[in-house]
Amino acid sequence: MSDLKEQYLSALEGELGDLLASTGPPYTTYYQMIHYHMGWLDADMHPTDGRAGKRIRPLLCLLTCSAAGGNYEQALPAAAAIETLHNFSLLHDDIEDDSDTRRGRPTVWKLWGVPQAINTGDGMFALAHLALIRLPQRGVSPDRTLTAMQLFDQTCLTLTHGQFLDMEFEHRLDVSVNEYLTMIEAKTAALIATSTHLGALLAGADGPTCAHWRAFGRHLGLTFQIRDDILGIWGDAETIGKSTATDILTRKKTLPVVYGLTRSPQLRAWYAAPIMPPDRVPRVAQELAAVGARQMAAELAAEHHQHALEALERALPAAGAASPAGQALQELATALLSRSR
Amino acid sequence: MSDLKEQYLSALEGELGDLLASTGPPYTTYYQMIHYHMGWLDADMHPTDGRAGKRIRPLLCLLTCSAAGGNYEQALPAAAAIETLHNFSLLHDDIEDDSDTRRGRPTVWKLWGVPQAINTGDGMFALAHLALIRLPQRGVSPDRTLTAMQLFDQTCLTLTHGQFLDMEFEHRLDVSVNEYLTMIEAKTAALIATSTHLGALLAGADGPTCAHWRAFGRHLGLTFQIRDDILGIWGDAETIGKSTATDILTRKKTLPVVYGLTRSPQLRAWYAAPIMPPDRVPRVAQELAAVGARQMAAELAAEHHQHALEALERALPAAGAASPAGQALQELATALLSRSR
Repeated sequence: MSDLKEQYLSALEGELGDLLASTGPPYTTYYQMIHYHMGWLDADMHPTDGRAGKRIRPLLCLLTCSAAGGNYEQALPAAAAIETLHNFSLLHDDIEDDSDTRRGRPTVWKLWGVPQAINTGDGMFALAHLALIRLPQRGVSPDRTLTAMQLFDQTCLTLTHGQFLDMEFEHRLDVSVNEYLTMIEAKTAALIATSTHLGALLAGADGPTCAHWRAFGRHLGLTFQIRDDILGIWGDAETIGKSTATDILTRKKTLPVVYGLTRSPQLRAWYAAPIMPPDRVPRVAQELAAVGARQMAAELAAEHHQHALEALERALPAAGAASPAGQALQELATALLSRSR
Repeated sequence: MSDLKEQYLSALEGELGDLLASTGPPYTTYYQMIHYHMGWLDADMHPTDGRAGKRIRPLLCLLTCSAAGGNYEQALPAAAAIETLHNFSLLHDDIEDDSDTRRGRPTVWKLWGVPQAINTGDGMFALAHLALIRLPQRGVSPDRTLTAMQLFDQTCLTLTHGQFLDMEFEHRLDVSVNEYLTMIEAKTAALIATSTHLGALLAGADGPTCAHWRAFGRHLGLTFQIRDDILGIWGDAETIGKSTATDILTRKKTLPVVYGLTRSPQLRAWYAAPIMPPDRVPRVAQELAAVGARQMAAELAAEHHQHALEALERALPAAGAASPAGQALQELATALLSRSR
């Protein structure tokens, strides 16, 4: 990792640690749940030497701020808000999806029960907002702070729209590709778009430049999600760290599946059954490829990949592109976009 | 009801209707869940001619703003934010407490399932924030808007602290009276205190005056909650609209119970049992009264009642006390505080 990324991640972790600091008794357990979810504590409530998650969104925010000519320290409250919001949504998603594990560890609801887990998520949602309210302390004007907050809260609402659709799709076999794209636009791309957008806004970029940064984040998010969908079926289990069978076994409505269901009565019959037998998984993957679902998804990902690079080129001034932050940002984007194995 | 209250409630419902308006397909069901919870739709998704809940908190906010010399229309976004936040917390509480009904109707999770209900609550949390962001449109300065937001988000966090303790108390027999008071301070009094505080802030009241308004709301909230605890055991079922047995049957840790458990080994034995037999309920109420729990709670409520009236007197300028809003506010406070049957 570059020194710059290391420096930004360390500053971010400091900001997050300060924001999410325990207030002590009687709320000790409350903050332990948060610190466990953030990866700072293990299941025995002992400190770890790391974090949970890659902190991609806040890193995009900080690097964008710097590459767009701003001071990344001014964007730290926004980066902390974004990461806290992302972790809030994962915490609630795990309950809603009935997921026992996340990042190889038991989920919060598994350890402390659903009622406390819902409430802890709500607390993280509030804390994400309290992070943004720190912007004026970093010298950001009240007007710009309010613009950032409106963007942030609109994104919070959009995330719940996306999750609503995602859960609704579970019970349907007739999801169209367009409906699916509306869903990932809201559930995944919006927060990544807002990460780069906020970074540019806090660097003082003008409206059109902010729009380019937002487009960069949006296409990056769409590419990332579609590639993830492809890997969830045809990926190498060792590389992606989870069994490639899971998405088919759980009958998840990812892009290739949604597309395949519109093309293959065989697939519709298989996905209409209440259970997916494990020995059917390879045949499902084969049928999906046969009807062109893999190719369709790969082409769409490549398209958004291209749009992301174009938007980045428009967003990034020449000086920014050559700066250490600009370089780190392009590296990060390349790494995310080329995640094809 | 006074014309003024009617006017404020109607303006509030307009603001809420605008804030929570459906965006149509594909989010029709998403907004139906919200509108049902707000009492605007019945279980067949037909419009009702009313609302769910008494809108006490936003009404306190609007009346305070007016009585403190402000224009209540400037406080409408804050009042809408408070009511939306309150309804968000009820929606999640119903899941966390496993409650099937609210206000005589099935709860949202009962109708649409836990996953969608959690997510809809999250959406209402985001919408509450989007309400506050409308303050500048009403002519409130960016600085004052940020102050309002900080107060609001600190209160959001405090609500989750209170709910954390309330749920933790369920599994304990050794809750002290002080711990209990810390819990209702966070879970109930904080939002009512913030309702009057925000009303005063948006009227442009100075710091000490805002503090008096906050104290009024806080003592009002504490009185209200403690009286509710007393009614939950010794109230008249017809007057309060629910069986007085419920709080004892569900072994709820209300103030009289918490106090009684510290005084009576018999009560501790009864509350340690996994089930409370219905025929034991009258004996529990009797034992609680015998160890002085009813008297203790009544005295504490009377104390906060007195503090509330004193704080209101300090907060309210002479002109404000005589104004229609000041009169309506005193009437509302008296009605809430004297809710003794």
